[in-house]
Amino acid sequence: MAQNLVFTNDVTSALNTILDTTPHNRVAVIVDENTRRCVLPEINSPHLRDAAIITIGAGDAYKNLNTLFQVWEGLQACGATRKSIVVNLGGGVVTDLGGFAAATFKRGIKFVNVPTTLLSAVDAAVGGKTGINFGGFKNEIGCFQEATDVVISTCFFSTLPVEELKSGYAEMLKHGMLSGEEEFHRLLDFDFEHTDAEQLLQLLRTSVLVKQRIVAEDPHEKGIRRALNLGHTVGHAFESKALHDGKPIAHGYAVAWGLVAEMVLSHNLLGFSSTQLHQLAEFVYHNYGAFHISCDHYEELLHLMQHDKKSEAGEINCTLLAACGDVKPGQVIPEEEMRIALDIYRDLMHI
Amino acid sequence: MAQNLVFTNDVTSALNTILDTTPHNRVAVIVDENTRRCVLPEINSPHLRDAAIITIGAGDAYKNLNTLFQVWEGLQACGATRKSIVVNLGGGVVTDLGGFAAATFKRGIKFVNVPTTLLSAVDAAVGGKTGINFGGFKNEIGCFQEATDVVISTCFFSTLPVEELKSGYAEMLKHGMLSGEEEFHRLLDFDFEHTDAEQLLQLLRTSVLVKQRIVAEDPHEKGIRRALNLGHTVGHAFESKALHDGKPIAHGYAVAWGLVAEMVLSHNLLGFSSTQLHQLAEFVYHNYGAFHISCDHYEELLHLMQHDKKSEAGEINCTLLAACGDVKPGQVIPEEEMRIALDIYRDLMHI
Repeated sequence: MAQNLVFTNDVTSALNTILDTTPHNRVAVIVDENTRRCVLPEINSPHLRDAAIITIGAGDAYKNLNTLFQVWEGLQACGATRKSIVVNLGGGVVTDLGGFAAATFKRGIKFVNVPTTLLSAVDAAVGGKTGINFGGFKNEIGCFQEATDVVISTCFFSTLPVEELKSGYAEMLKHGMLSGEEEFHRLLDFDFEHTDAEQLLQLLRTSVLVKQRIVAEDPHEKGIRRALNLGHTVGHAFESKALHDGKPIAHGYAVAWGLVAEMVLSHNLLGFSSTQLHQLAEFVYHNYGAFHISCDHYEELLHLMQHDKKSEAGEINCTLLAACGDVKPGQVIPEEEMRIALDIYRDLMHI
Repeated sequence: MAQNLVFTNDVTSALNTILDTTPHNRVAVIVDENTRRCVLPEINSPHLRDAAIITIGAGDAYKNLNTLFQVWEGLQACGATRKSIVVNLGGGVVTDLGGFAAATFKRGIKFVNVPTTLLSAVDAAVGGKTGINFGGFKNEIGCFQEATDVVISTCFFSTLPVEELKSGYAEMLKHGMLSGEEEFHRLLDFDFEHTDAEQLLQLLRTSVLVKQRIVAEDPHEKGIRRALNLGHTVGHAFESKALHDGKPIAHGYAVAWGLVAEMVLSHNLLGFSSTQLHQLAEFVYHNYGAFHISCDHYEELLHLMQHDKKSEAGEINCTLLAACGDVKPGQVIPEEEMRIALDIYRDLMHI
């Protein structure tokens, strides 16, 4: 059953329509401290007037078992039954954790996602991955369960810092490269200094539909869904290294830098266009700056890549592109090729 | 994808075949204190030699979030990945909780159920309902996820008390009545004083296949799966009353008595055969004795039935039979009819 995706900046109307047409006996809204204060008051739906509001802490540190317990208790306390609906109103933590809570309460009740950050709109809220962090690992506990409906808007982004926007935009860049040349170039034209909510909503629509198409082909990540890991093998290694060094970087920034390194590999191994590699590198350098590494860090980075969740038997595994839109998932990368790619990444990032 | 059900008393060979043919990098076995001591040593599979053994407390009191946490930690500690397999070796608590732990670890890894009690063989281990108790409610948190394989045997039952056997047998009786007259009569011929492992395995096979057929038609309990609630509306009310009175009764006993009361309703409302009603009542009275109620308890019992998980809007809802094999789920029962049925139940049970 395909998710119903609604792209609109009239979130109240969209939510009304969904709740009008979905029989239910109770609504529970999951928010974090920020979205309770800044977003919830903006939604004037009569359905939310008697809804139970369950508030969780803001930030990834709250994406844990304690918060999950608190949400389950909140659902129980408000008398939620199998006929109730959960509305997740927030960023990735709210949609991931709220989705998992709903998917497991009484063996699963319906939930609707209303992402309030670009990163959750383009990534977390669509595609059915739910979960929490556990024992020091991200998303270690969870399940695959799609929201019945996702309301995707850009109207709440204006209150977000520009770094937050850029972080989400990196995932859009990834979807564009998976989709084709035309989309890739449209995305490179975007100007973060002069963002327009409607223009961004159009770009977002195209981007989310790329993801939805891939997820529909492979909901449980057995094959083609791994395409969505583009940029993430190197990106995760950068992210983990930064975390270990006590200087954490935003996920999307890591993905942007990871995309550059993996397009170097794509060029060297699969003939990806040199022009497009340079265009990407320039866009990333201009908007995201550089993640600074030296050759002294290569061993550590290679080790991290070999222990990525998606790796088997200590091999480095990447999704690469022969061209924009021509995806080659599951490429095993020799260590030497990765060293060369990191050298060239440093050149492209003026390091 | 249908569950692979293996009916055999050579559990070691069955498990070997399953693990030989399912690619995996690690096996984790979940047992409780009893099955670790009494059952695990009986299984001489080379696959289990290096397996991680995760032991949980025995009994329904341990079917909770703390134990789930402990199992997730155990899986993490033994280095389980998406390519690992969990073997649940135990009764309903182990298969329900172990199944839920596996279904949510890294968003779901494969698990095999090896039920060691009749109740779990005929009910819990097959059909994909997993979960834990939470906030005072049974199975409040969980999901639908089928074991890839279930090894069903009767060879471990000889160490169980006869009450345990009878408890499981009540669910078989239920399946027999859902299936047809022939199966119903075959089940009434069973003698608990002289049980034979192979005869029981044959009966069990027929019984489990009835359940599997119903579950395959309706995995998420939207319609016909409610047929499996036969005997359970009244049975759950008896069970809850007994619990409140501080004299808990075994689930299967409650189902046996519930079946009698619901066949009275089936006779009165849908013309279910009077002869078969009396045959059932006699079998139940002979093997299970009676659950003692007086008309002073009717209000309490009606209240419990109106608040059953499957009820909507305070109505009493039962699955009834027009005849063995002719199932009528979702019958709304007027209070007065339920009072009459409880009167006749008391007559049939010599109260």
